[in-house]
Amino acid sequence: MGPPEDSPVGHPMFARIRLATPSDVPHIHKMIHQMAVFERLTHLCSATENSLSSTLFSPTTKPFHSFTIFLLEVSPNPFTDSVITDPSFTPVVKVVHLDLPIDDPEKETFTTNAVNDVSVAGFVLFFPNYSTFLAKPGFYIEDLFVRDCFRRKGFGKMLLSTVAKQAVKMGYGRVEWVVLDWNVNAIKFYEEMGAKILHEWRVCRLTGDALEAYGIAD
Amino acid sequence: MGPPEDSPVGHPMFARIRLATPSDVPHIHKMIHQMAVFERLTHLCSATENSLSSTLFSPTTKPFHSFTIFLLEVSPNPFTDSVITDPSFTPVVKVVHLDLPIDDPEKETFTTNAVNDVSVAGFVLFFPNYSTFLAKPGFYIEDLFVRDCFRRKGFGKMLLSTVAKQAVKMGYGRVEWVVLDWNVNAIKFYEEMGAKILHEWRVCRLTGDALEAYGIAD
Repeated sequence: MGPPEDSPVGHPMFARIRLATPSDVPHIHKMIHQMAVFERLTHLCSATENSLSSTLFSPTTKPFHSFTIFLLEVSPNPFTDSVITDPSFTPVVKVVHLDLPIDDPEKETFTTNAVNDVSVAGFVLFFPNYSTFLAKPGFYIEDLFVRDCFRRKGFGKMLLSTVAKQAVKMGYGRVEWVVLDWNVNAIKFYEEMGAKILHEWRVCRLTGDALEAYGIAD
Repeated sequence: MGPPEDSPVGHPMFARIRLATPSDVPHIHKMIHQMAVFERLTHLCSATENSLSSTLFSPTTKPFHSFTIFLLEVSPNPFTDSVITDPSFTPVVKVVHLDLPIDDPEKETFTTNAVNDVSVAGFVLFFPNYSTFLAKPGFYIEDLFVRDCFRRKGFGKMLLSTVAKQAVKMGYGRVEWVVLDWNVNAIKFYEEMGAKILHEWRVCRLTGDALEAYGIAD
């Protein structure tokens, strides 16, 4: 006799998305570094815990009206703690049923609540942008990251959907981000999420010495 | 006998960049519409004076920390009025010497100060973005527009430089924007300004019905 039809099989994993707080910076910093390793761009990554703290959690950074981070946490147990840190967002919780439990080689590094076995599995960093044609704000997603052992389980989609849902809730007109043109898997994933790829547009960037030169120019 | 060597020849035109205020919205709205005509995208442009006012000048939009507009004004006379509307920015004034005076067919529509013959000639709309690798904010330029009869006189450069200078002043790491890949003149201009074109990146956009669907999804 198999399991009853209404009993989910496999290993449940509880996933929660909440607003990040200053105490999450060490975990965010480690994930930013992992992202740089994945993109082979560590030489361009100069973020430190201090520089992230002061720029992401300054008095002017109000969630959704400035730089905002959703943190993804996972646990084999239901979440018991309340993490409503801002009245503007109620954390999102989902349960996924895995065939096999996930073996997280960095579990200790990313633990946020040892008692309840909660770890950080990913994040998305976004902030408002603006369309003059729509005369509406939107959200721009700067980073979407899921730690290696948690990939291909729908967590990227969960993070992106939560940003999209928040945009709709606020009456915003667009959610935008960029993708590398050779990353066909990512492009396919985004198109399945309903996104259009703007093939004709190119990003222009003024940075480093070329930018600094404007500080001393007339 | 010609003019003395230290006397500039031609027709002086005074140009000033200042922060826009809510009373500038009618002019900004008209320029956004002209931009849509230029880009043959009027069918995508649904901005009204009301929708622009409420989204660009809400209580949460603090200059440089949210959506920000620099307005370009021109006059054949030196500016006499004070337009310091925010302590964070001192207006920039330049004099250009033209061979011929500019005949502005829409002068009446764009006048801001009839007594001193001041008209609006362009604008740039920008807002903060963020780089996790730098752990620093930057500016993203959504629109840069100079009215038709004022083009090719260095005003686009003046607007872009003023944004870049402000970024440096605030310790920001980047100024970014997008360009159409077939717009070779614009690309050449931006490269001459010191910008790099990121050829590998593509913009992804979730909007309209595809975005709205997330509002009702689980």
